[in-house]
Amino acid sequence: MSDASELRREVCALHAYLPAHRLVAWTSGNLSGRAPGAKTMLIKPSGVMFEDLTPESLCEVDIETLEARGPYKVSSDTATHAYIYRHMPEVGGVVHTHSPYATAFAAVGREIPCFLTAMADEFGGPIPCGGFALIGGEEIGREVVRVLRGHRSPAVVMQNHGVFALGPTPRAALKAAVMCEDVARTSFLALQLGTPVPLAQEAIDKLHERYTTVYGQ
Amino acid sequence: MSDASELRREVCALHAYLPAHRLVAWTSGNLSGRAPGAKTMLIKPSGVMFEDLTPESLCEVDIETLEARGPYKVSSDTATHAYIYRHMPEVGGVVHTHSPYATAFAAVGREIPCFLTAMADEFGGPIPCGGFALIGGEEIGREVVRVLRGHRSPAVVMQNHGVFALGPTPRAALKAAVMCEDVARTSFLALQLGTPVPLAQEAIDKLHERYTTVYGQ
Amino acid sequence: MSDASELRREVCALHAYLPAHRLVAWTSGNLSGRAPGAKTMLIKPSGVMFEDLTPESLCEVDIETLEARGPYKVSSDTATHAYIYRHMPEVGGVVHTHSPYATAFAAVGREIPCFLTAMADEFGGPIPCGGFALIGGEEIGREVVRVLRGHRSPAVVMQNHGVFALGPTPRAALKAAVMCEDVARTSFLALQLGTPVPLAQEAIDKLHERYTTVYGQ
Amino acid sequence: MSDASELRREVCALHAYLPAHRLVAWTSGNLSGRAPGAKTMLIKPSGVMFEDLTPESLCEVDIETLEARGPYKVSSDTATHAYIYRHMPEVGGVVHTHSPYATAFAAVGREIPCFLTAMADEFGGPIPCGGFALIGGEEIGREVVRVLRGHRSPAVVMQNHGVFALGPTPRAALKAAVMCEDVARTSFLALQLGTPVPLAQEAIDKLHERYTTVYGQ
Repeated sequence: MSDASELRREVCALHAYLPAHRLVAWTSGNLSGRAPGAKTMLIKPSGVMFEDLTPESLCEVDIETLEARGPYKVSSDTATHAYIYRHMPEVGGVVHTHSPYATAFAAVGREIPCFLTAMADEFGGPIPCGGFALIGGEEIGREVVRVLRGHRSPAVVMQNHGVFALGPTPRAALKAAVMCEDVARTSFLALQLGTPVPLAQEAIDKLHERYTTVYGQ
Repeated sequence: MSDASELRREVCALHAYLPAHRLVAWTSGNLSGRAPGAKTMLIKPSGVMFEDLTPESLCEVDIETLEARGPYKVSSDTATHAYIYRHMPEVGGVVHTHSPYATAFAAVGREIPCFLTAMADEFGGPIPCGGFALIGGEEIGREVVRVLRGHRSPAVVMQNHGVFALGPTPRAALKAAVMCEDVARTSFLALQLGTPVPLAQEAIDKLHERYTTVYGQ
Repeated sequence: MSDASELRREVCALHAYLPAHRLVAWTSGNLSGRAPGAKTMLIKPSGVMFEDLTPESLCEVDIETLEARGPYKVSSDTATHAYIYRHMPEVGGVVHTHSPYATAFAAVGREIPCFLTAMADEFGGPIPCGGFALIGGEEIGREVVRVLRGHRSPAVVMQNHGVFALGPTPRAALKAAVMCEDVARTSFLALQLGTPVPLAQEAIDKLHERYTTVYGQ
Repeated sequence: MSDASELRREVCALHAYLPAHRLVAWTSGNLSGRAPGAKTMLIKPSGVMFEDLTPESLCEVDIETLEARGPYKVSSDTATHAYIYRHMPEVGGVVHTHSPYATAFAAVGREIPCFLTAMADEFGGPIPCGGFALIGGEEIGREVVRVLRGHRSPAVVMQNHGVFALGPTPRAALKAAVMCEDVARTSFLALQLGTPVPLAQEAIDKLHERYTTVYGQ
């Protein structure tokens, strides 16, 4: 089995986590993957139900020319994903959702502040809020890259829009999207309850350092 | 297999999404379908559990006379659905729910404001709030048609009551009902967090135009 | 198959809806049934996981003497259920939950106000709040009966405690418990959003009259 | 079948309740068990998906030396679990989560106040809030033990972090974690609605006494 078909199976399988974790509604949201150094990415087709996705239904898209192969029309977020892959060679997976708690922060144009150890772990500080950009061309991708390049956080909430999460692999990007919604929800609840206790920058730094070097297998 | 029995299977199958997407509680909520130009619609019987619905259990109802055929008594919202089909020939599907976040807006008599790109996409602006109307006769249908005819939004929240969502097909109407609850929830959360950033009318127009002409297969 | 074993199977099967509708956590919450005119009720055993219930595991309890038969110790709410059956001969089913939104109203000692048509339908007005009573003896049952006898509402929220819902059958009581949480949640959300529009008493009366005479099969 | 392999199967099986009850996101959260008097505990490996856990994948860890056996690296909360077992010999199970409602209380550094009978039952009063402590060494375990030793509550919310719940068995600890989130959610909702009615200390005492001596099989 070639690496390409393994990535295809993985990108298809990971899509199932989006509705299972309630990050998406109906056909909104998508996930893509790019093998290290590859010139193409695999991405969800537009407007297809998550339950109907198969490895074969995914679109293979040239990240430079946006030329696409596959039985379906490409996701309407294709230009954004391709822009990110072109400008961040270390990225191997991108996830886009309108997950409700994170998108609520996006709607009020606020970063998600960092007062949870789980957030220091995964994001190394606040999850930043990117500016408003219209879909269709390179505007969204440009803003995502501007905000996240060199940033500790693998996720950004885009004003009035939703979440983009990145990672070295599609699975890592999915994890960032899942954790983004999880910490956004707890942060929302804490802000309703009262004034969250600040986390010292030194504690955030130590947690993030430990998580990125010690956690996992 | 005739078109009629295919619509029957589709209307039955789509009902399963209502509890799966947590838009309904117990037996509340219903969905109907009408083939293009047909004089009858297929609709859920009254007070039947969603898990017990079969294609054969659906009621076939004349949209002019409300005469019904089928093993069960018709949904108590039958007059509303029929009124909509009579006065909006382009409509092929109607969904009614009391989904909680959208109905909360209905309870305070407020439209759902548009500050999310996903809302601009599907609804082209705010989701309007219709006036209060009692069930039983044509009052609800009349108000739904008054509000939605010529409106960009395929959904309306009816004061003190719940959601009616329309579409050219039952599936399209269901999608509008699902997206209505999704954007209502995110809007609710954003309003609790602070003041949502307005979306410029020009951006809303462009997003809606693109979504209705480019999105999907 | 005797009526008794059918009631046993029904009481067992209906318990599965409690976790499925997220009305209960772990082993809290219970449901009982009494055949019309019968001197015994069937009720959940104490502290048994919902997934482990079988028809045979249910306790059969004399509603006068509280003498119990069955392989397990009876629910700690047994005295309350029995008191209700003794004093309300028309009741054939009782459900008790700590469902979160309804119990939040109980915690602040407030009735759930009626500004939703779905609430007028099922409850005919507000869901009343009963006074605080300690578990163990007849205090809770006495308060439930004091509040609900002659009341339109089949459910009461008990201060600092949770929900008791009644019906002519266990299924009807379960429906009332499900709808109680559903309208409590929408009411909670509406109260967070702003000031709900009042429903006129005349509208509430008409909706309740129609629902109790026309709705269902 | 030895006791050791039974505990292994139980610790593995109980982990499945964490995502099922929505107490955890992705791979966060963990559960451990220690047989009465044993010198080792069984605990989740680090960063493994809950769906991939098998009894064989669990780590066996010496609670004094932290020496570990098993195919995977140990949970990053291992030192905390071991510290608790060393200093509280009556504890046979520990659960750690970032469950959202309880963690929201932790984020604002507040105990969860006791105004629900279900909370008096299981926790015998408020769920205390422990101070902030960094992961990695003995700091978290020391703070958990300092707060919970001799306390009625089997659970603590740790500031800016999450929940630790203890019990004589892994199942009892899991129950405490589930109930902690359940009462935290209802408490949160009640605090949004208004001012909860206080529960008299005498009532709390009676409820807790009854629950710990009469409830269950």
